[in-house]
Amino acid sequence: MSSIFTKIVKGEIPAYKVAETDEFLAFLDINPNTRGHTLCILKVEVDKWYEADHKQFTDLMTFSKRVALAIEESIACKRIGLSIIGLEVPHVHVHLIPLKHMDNARFTSKVSLSDDEFKETAQAISQAFNNQNV
Amino acid sequence: MSSIFTKIVKGEIPAYKVAETDEFLAFLDINPNTRGHTLCILKVEVDKWYEADHKQFTDLMTFSKRVALAIEESIACKRIGLSIIGLEVPHVHVHLIPLKHMDNARFTSKVSLSDDEFKETAQAISQAFNNQNV
Repeated sequence: MSSIFTKIVKGEIPAYKVAETDEFLAFLDINPNTRGHTLCILKVEVDKWYEADHKQFTDLMTFSKRVALAIEESIACKRIGLSIIGLEVPHVHVHLIPLKHMDNARFTSKVSLSDDEFKETAQAISQAFNNQNV
Repeated sequence: MSSIFTKIVKGEIPAYKVAETDEFLAFLDINPNTRGHTLCILKVEVDKWYEADHKQFTDLMTFSKRVALAIEESIACKRIGLSIIGLEVPHVHVHLIPLKHMDNARFTSKVSLSDDEFKETAQAISQAFNNQNV
């Protein structure tokens, strides 16, 4: 069965997309730790991050770095944290989380955003991403 | 002033080292979330992970992947989590954490290990790292 992220890739489940390439997709976490909390995934299903092959993994990290720079430009925070956990969805996903303090990295307190807030956030990050010189 | 991690690189502060190359160092977190919790660092001081240049960053992630595979071979767990936070020490460090459940990724509950336990853990991971075919 397809993972929930594969369903997002295929367009079977909606998502607030922020960046996309042939191989990678970034979209907002629907249950965010903080505003701007984004997931970066490989479009193909790989379970553990260290099971991805060298190129898949380093390219995913390079894509995540670009997305992190776009988030930092769009969201007020001290820095962007990165976490890969994967205990719930066995499809590699990189959490990029705008951090102001340590609690933002713990996945315990969450923020609630309206549909409009999600859309504005995705659009701001997306615009910053597309404006990068690469 | 040198960061605490630069002092470890220079040997001014002791650490339970698990792997080392010319550019990177991995050693056990002295206040671990779980047994086997390891930090991977660039020997040069860079603050935010997305400020490292392309090669530094992808090489650090490749090194971290090798260390994660060595930890997985040495420590019973469901998978190895990866986190980069950096709110406390402004010198990029990748947390590799053997996870059994989500709480292990939150940096709230910690385990206490004796000097012997740290040494045994470092030795087991180090041996697995050195035995890799690369």
